[in-house]
Amino acid sequence: MYPLNAWYVACTPQEIDDKPLGRRICQQPIVFYRAGDGAVTALEDFCPHRGAPLSLGQVIEGRLVCGYHGLAMGCSGKTISMPGQRVERFPTIRSYPVVERHGFVWVWPGDAALADADLIHPCPWADNPEWAYGGGLFHIGCDYRLMVDNLMDLTHETYVHATSIGQKEIDETPPETRVEGTEVITSRFMNDIDPPPFWRMALRGNHLPDDQRVDRWQICHFSPPSHVLIEVGVALAGKGGYHADAKYKASSIVVDFITPETDTSIWYFWGMARNFNARDKALTASIREGQGKIFSEDLEMLERQQQNLVHWPDRRLLKLNIDAGGVHARRVLEKLVAQERAAAEPTAAASA
Amino acid sequence: MYPLNAWYVACTPQEIDDKPLGRRICQQPIVFYRAGDGAVTALEDFCPHRGAPLSLGQVIEGRLVCGYHGLAMGCSGKTISMPGQRVERFPTIRSYPVVERHGFVWVWPGDAALADADLIHPCPWADNPEWAYGGGLFHIGCDYRLMVDNLMDLTHETYVHATSIGQKEIDETPPETRVEGTEVITSRFMNDIDPPPFWRMALRGNHLPDDQRVDRWQICHFSPPSHVLIEVGVALAGKGGYHADAKYKASSIVVDFITPETDTSIWYFWGMARNFNARDKALTASIREGQGKIFSEDLEMLERQQQNLVHWPDRRLLKLNIDAGGVHARRVLEKLVAQERAAAEPTAAASA
Amino acid sequence: MYPLNAWYVACTPQEIDDKPLGRRICQQPIVFYRAGDGAVTALEDFCPHRGAPLSLGQVIEGRLVCGYHGLAMGCSGKTISMPGQRVERFPTIRSYPVVERHGFVWVWPGDAALADADLIHPCPWADNPEWAYGGGLFHIGCDYRLMVDNLMDLTHETYVHATSIGQKEIDETPPETRVEGTEVITSRFMNDIDPPPFWRMALRGNHLPDDQRVDRWQICHFSPPSHVLIEVGVALAGKGGYHADAKYKASSIVVDFITPETDTSIWYFWGMARNFNARDKALTASIREGQGKIFSEDLEMLERQQQNLVHWPDRRLLKLNIDAGGVHARRVLEKLVAQERAAAEPTAAASA
Repeated sequence: MYPLNAWYVACTPQEIDDKPLGRRICQQPIVFYRAGDGAVTALEDFCPHRGAPLSLGQVIEGRLVCGYHGLAMGCSGKTISMPGQRVERFPTIRSYPVVERHGFVWVWPGDAALADADLIHPCPWADNPEWAYGGGLFHIGCDYRLMVDNLMDLTHETYVHATSIGQKEIDETPPETRVEGTEVITSRFMNDIDPPPFWRMALRGNHLPDDQRVDRWQICHFSPPSHVLIEVGVALAGKGGYHADAKYKASSIVVDFITPETDTSIWYFWGMARNFNARDKALTASIREGQGKIFSEDLEMLERQQQNLVHWPDRRLLKLNIDAGGVHARRVLEKLVAQERAAAEPTAAASA
Repeated sequence: MYPLNAWYVACTPQEIDDKPLGRRICQQPIVFYRAGDGAVTALEDFCPHRGAPLSLGQVIEGRLVCGYHGLAMGCSGKTISMPGQRVERFPTIRSYPVVERHGFVWVWPGDAALADADLIHPCPWADNPEWAYGGGLFHIGCDYRLMVDNLMDLTHETYVHATSIGQKEIDETPPETRVEGTEVITSRFMNDIDPPPFWRMALRGNHLPDDQRVDRWQICHFSPPSHVLIEVGVALAGKGGYHADAKYKASSIVVDFITPETDTSIWYFWGMARNFNARDKALTASIREGQGKIFSEDLEMLERQQQNLVHWPDRRLLKLNIDAGGVHARRVLEKLVAQERAAAEPTAAASA
Repeated sequence: MYPLNAWYVACTPQEIDDKPLGRRICQQPIVFYRAGDGAVTALEDFCPHRGAPLSLGQVIEGRLVCGYHGLAMGCSGKTISMPGQRVERFPTIRSYPVVERHGFVWVWPGDAALADADLIHPCPWADNPEWAYGGGLFHIGCDYRLMVDNLMDLTHETYVHATSIGQKEIDETPPETRVEGTEVITSRFMNDIDPPPFWRMALRGNHLPDDQRVDRWQICHFSPPSHVLIEVGVALAGKGGYHADAKYKASSIVVDFITPETDTSIWYFWGMARNFNARDKALTASIREGQGKIFSEDLEMLERQQQNLVHWPDRRLLKLNIDAGGVHARRVLEKLVAQERAAAEPTAAASA
C-alpha cells in the first residue's frame, strides 16, 4: 500500500557514478545509470533478449550494454543495437521518469504521463553554500509506514535514543498535530531545559556554550509519499526559541526520504542539513556519524515491530495524541492510493 | 500438535536476571522478566500501544517499560502508565501463568484457569546439597516429538554417540516399555559389561576404579507434555546393579525438558543431575562439557530427519520394540490434545 | 521440467570414496555409496525405520548402516539386518540404477526398467593416456535450461569472460545451428584472429608461439538430458583450422554435465579434456584453475537471470539466431518429457 504516482528517492548520485545500479523500488526491479550526456536514466532491470538484469552490465559510450550478450539499450527502453542482430522489432522495456535533483536521484514508479518534476519535494539546503548536508542509507525490514510513524512521533527518542537526543522533557511535552492539505505537521516546543549530548555537541560546533539551559523544538513535516523533514534545534534559553536570532541557536533539518522496496522493506535515506558553520567539514562528518549511530538504534525495533504485526495481523494499534502525526499521514496515503486506484479503473488496479 | 495446558520450561532464571527475554513458546511470542518483587512474569511480547516487542524494553522499578515509547506494563497485562496518557482503557495483553522452580522458569501456554503449580514436574535434585546439576540449552529445527523419540530409544547411542556413551551391548539388550497413566517408562539393564568412556570418567569422578566390569542401566521416564528424565548409571559388576550400594556406583539423572517453539523447532533444555561427589564443581563442569558435546551430535540427525519427513509426508514410520517408548508417548500426547480440543468445543480449537 | 528417464551425473567417484554422499537429484534425495565390492549404489536417502537420512550413516563391511539406530541396508533397498529385529517385512526403499563410468557416477532417476548403461554418454577422453582431464563442481541457483542456454550461445564470452576467452570476433561471427535427432550442434569458426589470453596460455602449454594469428573454433554439442560438450581450439592461422595437423594447434573439449537439483537449482559438473601435452600435470592444474575462474563469472548472471524470470513469469524471451542452440535443446527436452508423460499414462505423470 503505497502511492505509485509520486517521486521517491531511488539512490544518491554517487551510487551510479561508476556503474549501473539495480534497485527494487515499490516491488519493481529498476536499473539506474548515467547515459551519454550524464543524465540519469531508469529502466526495467530486464534485458529483452533473455531476461538478464541489465544492472550487471556496463555503460559504454553512453549506452547501457547488457553484460550477458551485448545488447545495447537506449534511454527510452528501446534496444539500440546488438551484435549481428536487427533490433527494430525487439520489445521495448519500460522506462521510468527520473530526475537528479537536490543531491538525490528521484524516480516515479507510476504512470509516466503524470510525472511532473515540479512535484519533487523542495530541498532548500541543496546548492546553497550557507547550508551543509550529510547523510546515509539504511535497508530496513519493515513497512514504510512504520518508519513514518517513528519519525512523526519523536517521544521514542526518550527511550530508543536515551544517550544522545532523548530526554524526559520530550515525553512530558504533548505535541500538536495539524493537517494542511496533504501535509501533516507535528510540533513540540520545550523551553528552559538542559540540552542532551547531541545538542551540546552541536552548540559547541556553532561556537556557543554547551552548559546553559536552552529552548528546544521539533517540527515534523510529513508529505506524501513518504518524506519526513524535521526542523530541530536549540536556542539559548529566553532568546526567542525557534525564532531566536541565528547567533543564539543551533538548528538543522533532519531529512528522511523513505522508499518502499517491498511491502515489508524499505530504503531509508536519512541525513541532516544545517545552516550554521556550514563550511566545517569535520563538523559535518561528526554530525553524520552521530546521526547514523542514533538512527541505527531504531532498526531492531522497527524490524521486530514488523514481525509482531505479521504475527498478529488483526490487532488494532492505539492512536494516541503522540501518534496523531503517523495516523494522519496514513489517512493521507490511503486517500491517495484510493484515488490512484479509482483513476486506474476500469483498466486495472495501479498499486500493489 | 502439542498440549497447551501444560507446564513447559521457558528459560533458566539466569536468562532473565539482567533484562527481559523474548522467546516464542508453542508459537506464541512471550516476554519473560522479573517484576518488582523479583517474581517472574510472562506476558504477550506485544506492546498494546503500537505492537513493539516489550522484550526490547527494560525493567524499571519493577515495571516492564516498552523501549519504544515508554509504556509501563503491569504484571497482569494491564498498562500501568504512559507519559502524558490516560491508560485506563488501553487493551489488556495476555499474561501467562509462570513459576520459577527447581532452577527453571515454567510457563503454561494454555488456559490460565487450569494452571496449577502443583502439576510442575518434581525435580528431586534441585535444592538438595547431596545433588549437583549442570546443563544447557540448544535450539533445534525439529518437531519436539522427534526429540522425545530420540530420548526414549537409547539404542541410538551405539551409533550417534559411539565414542562416549555408546556401546554394542545397548543394541543387544532389548528394552522394556510400560505405561503408567500418562507416564511412559522404557528401561534397559546391561550386566557385566565394560564401561564406555563417559562412564569411566564418572567412575573416576566418584573415586571408583574405571577398569572393571560394570552393570549399567538406563530407565527413561516420559511424562507429558515433553519431559524425559533418564536414570542412568553403572555399578561395579555384581554389587547389585541399579540397587547397589552408593559406594559401588556412579549414577545420575539425564534431564530433558523439551519446549516446542514452532511445529518444527524446539528449545531443548538438557542437563545432568548426580548424587555423588556433588560438591566437586570441576566434575560438574567436566560432565556438563561432555554431555553438551554428546548431545550436539544429535542435532544434525534430528534436523535432517525432520527435513526428510517434510519431503515424504505420507510415509509411515516403523514402530519396533525399541520405538515403543516414543510410540506410547505420542499416544499419550494425542489423547491429551484431543481432550483439550474437546473441552474447548464449541468455542474454538485450543491448539495449533 | 526435465526428463527422468536419463543418465545424469550424480557425483565424482572421489565424493563417495570415504563416506556416503547425500545429494538431491531431480528433487529426489538420494544416498550414494560404495558397497562391499566397491560398486556404487544409489538409494533413497530415507531409513525405513524412522526416516533418518542414510547418508549420515557409515559403510561397514559393504553395508550402509544407518547412523541413527544401526539398520543395515542392502544395495537393493531391502533391509539386511538391524540389531535385535526381524527385518524381513521392513518396507523396501527405492534403489536407483547407477553406474560409475568415465570418471563420473551416473544415476537414472526415472523408470529403472528403462535404464540401459549403453545410453551413458561416451567420454572418449576418459581412460585414454593421450588425454588429460580436469574439472570441478558448482552449485547454482537456476533452472538447468538457463545453463544449457548459456553453453549453447557462446557470444556471452565476449561480455562475461572479456578478460580470458572473450573477444569481439565471437560476436561478429554468426553461429550455425543444426539438429541431428536429439542432438543439437551449434558451431562458429573465426579465422585469422588474435588469440585471447586463455588460448595464448594453451598455445604456450603446447609449445607453440602465442603471438601469432590463429584460426579459432567452437562446436557446441547438446545431447539430452543436459550434456553440453564443446570442441574448442585454435590453430596457427592458415594451417587448416579445426582440421589442422595436431602440431599446429591447441584444442580441447569443454565438458558440461548439468544435473537438476530442484526446478531452480543445479549441480554443474564442468571440466576440460585436452589431447595435447597430456602428461603435464601442472598444465592440467593451470587450465583447471583458469576454467574454474572463468565459469564462476557466470554464476551471478545465471542466478539473477533466474530471479528476473521468477519476477516476470509471463514475459516471452527472444529467440535470435544466437539462441538457436538453446531453443532447439528446449524443444528436444519438451518432446522427451511429453513422451515420458504419455508413456506413464494412465497411471501417473512421471515428471515434476
